[in-house]
Amino acid sequence: METLAMRGPGPEPALIGLDWGTSSLRGYLIGRDGALLDRRGQPWGVQHLPAGGFAAAFRGITDGWLEEWPNLPILASGMVGSRHGWREVPYVDCPADPTTVAAGLVPFDGGCGIIHLVPGLSLSHPTPDVMRGEETQILGGLAIDPALGRESLFLLPGTHCKWATVGNGRVLRFTTYLTGELFALLRDHSILGRPAAEDAARDGSTTGHGSLAAFRHGVAMARESGASGIPGRLFSTRSLFLAGTLTAAQTLDYLSGLLVGDEIRSGLTGLPAGGPPPIVLVGDRPLCDRYREALGGFGIADVRTLDETGPAGLWRIAVAAGIVGVPDERSRAADQS
Amino acid sequence: METLAMRGPGPEPALIGLDWGTSSLRGYLIGRDGALLDRRGQPWGVQHLPAGGFAAAFRGITDGWLEEWPNLPILASGMVGSRHGWREVPYVDCPADPTTVAAGLVPFDGGCGIIHLVPGLSLSHPTPDVMRGEETQILGGLAIDPALGRESLFLLPGTHCKWATVGNGRVLRFTTYLTGELFALLRDHSILGRPAAEDAARDGSTTGHGSLAAFRHGVAMARESGASGIPGRLFSTRSLFLAGTLTAAQTLDYLSGLLVGDEIRSGLTGLPAGGPPPIVLVGDRPLCDRYREALGGFGIADVRTLDETGPAGLWRIAVAAGIVGVPDERSRAADQS
Repeated sequence: METLAMRGPGPEPALIGLDWGTSSLRGYLIGRDGALLDRRGQPWGVQHLPAGGFAAAFRGITDGWLEEWPNLPILASGMVGSRHGWREVPYVDCPADPTTVAAGLVPFDGGCGIIHLVPGLSLSHPTPDVMRGEETQILGGLAIDPALGRESLFLLPGTHCKWATVGNGRVLRFTTYLTGELFALLRDHSILGRPAAEDAARDGSTTGHGSLAAFRHGVAMARESGASGIPGRLFSTRSLFLAGTLTAAQTLDYLSGLLVGDEIRSGLTGLPAGGPPPIVLVGDRPLCDRYREALGGFGIADVRTLDETGPAGLWRIAVAAGIVGVPDERSRAADQS
Repeated sequence: METLAMRGPGPEPALIGLDWGTSSLRGYLIGRDGALLDRRGQPWGVQHLPAGGFAAAFRGITDGWLEEWPNLPILASGMVGSRHGWREVPYVDCPADPTTVAAGLVPFDGGCGIIHLVPGLSLSHPTPDVMRGEETQILGGLAIDPALGRESLFLLPGTHCKWATVGNGRVLRFTTYLTGELFALLRDHSILGRPAAEDAARDGSTTGHGSLAAFRHGVAMARESGASGIPGRLFSTRSLFLAGTLTAAQTLDYLSGLLVGDEIRSGLTGLPAGGPPPIVLVGDRPLCDRYREALGGFGIADVRTLDETGPAGLWRIAVAAGIVGVPDERSRAADQS
């Protein structure tokens, strides 16, 4: 367990926040001023629960916290509120801000006391889309730097990368890219992943992600595809290998560059003319670095990366909901819903 | 075994042709005038060989033919000439025609007598690409209707769909689209395929491909994506299901429409201005019908479908190589190489 131990008497906690995704569960103990007092992580995503299910995972991640501070309000965001989560929570439509998200909180008692589940966001136009968990990270980014609320573009790379356009302090619209999932599928199951897999099997090791040059080559190939996009260039991952231009080990970096590059090509094409607004990357640092590299390949150098914004987002939503600050606020908010 | 039995004395055969791909092997007995006298099929693709390997598959598919006509020349096209085939055959560069392909034939004796292996085609610009087997089908189409040689666009749907531009009787250039493989991956392994799989598991049956409306919806979504392409719309397969617009069973047809539509969107974008040349579909009839439907969604109604062009292509190449027509030509051609 990843933990950031608290020693001796310290600031009084005011909120327990959970970022409960598909593959991991993070628990945050948050102070009266929104400061992070303790952090824990477990691989207990909603698809990977321990024996005892949601309740056991909840008790494990909050172990000791509720015993010491039994009246702390609890807020949980992410897939825990999805159809396959602990309790399904209706989406809140875009545009969305801390107030509308807070209004969509669902208090829920799954046998562990009241947990306020954060709703995900939905969008109907131009293409229907949904997110769960990322809304909290975006609102956290806006809480950390309110200037970003004026106009910015949040990119949250991952299995499913979200591009969210922010304006007037609100999430105006967003788009989901399956880039991470697509890369894993093509690597593990397609003809494009075969050379690297055979290479790794021969060496008795994984090939790793080493070639920045091959990644950049893939990004450039995607950029140059223009309005055609990469449907007709995906196969070059194989033909460049057959032609000896790429080694087996380089094919995966090239493929990653192609896919991330096509995501950026597509995403930038969809933006209004006049160049993209300030871009903010949020998420896993090595992955954000790859996106920063790829954005550089498109001539976009001014990109900011924010680390873990989840705690700030949970705090921001809790403040908007009025469930922090007053000790007995928690039960009142639950009664009202 | 699929066979077209020959009864009694008939036209004298002049060539044995094999179309030997990744997942299937087809054998053709071809007459002096190029007419198809007998046809056989087995699921003995180069990745699915029977016990005894290539030689056993060869003896099985030609069973009886060589015993009756021991001097017949043999021509084989497809993945049998790939790195993972019986014997690797170097590609012939585009532009290519029957003469250049015939010049690249490699006579090979794998213990079953001389087999002339047909080279695949390669392309270096603008994007490196390769094909094996489709060149024979395209040359067959041109043999069936020489008028197509002036200017046409061949589409050969399948796991990997090839778009080949033909002019002056030659294959000028081509592009590979992984559409079929991508669809199977997304259906079988991604979050997009999950609703249909759960639906099928509940019903105890496969959902089948039933909804033409959902397919057309996907095609329209891809067309409307314009220069962005579908990277930001793939996920709509799930969000439209979550929103209740698509049933679980319809999601796969919609996804198929999205992918085929994006292939067409991308392919048409890459063509020179002035509209596409006459389009010819070659391959599996139901799949060609889907492509015809999708092309219709892009306003392209005048599309021709050619059935099995492999035998005509093998014959055309054999004629160009001079290995048919003269009984002892076969051994002479082999000696020269």
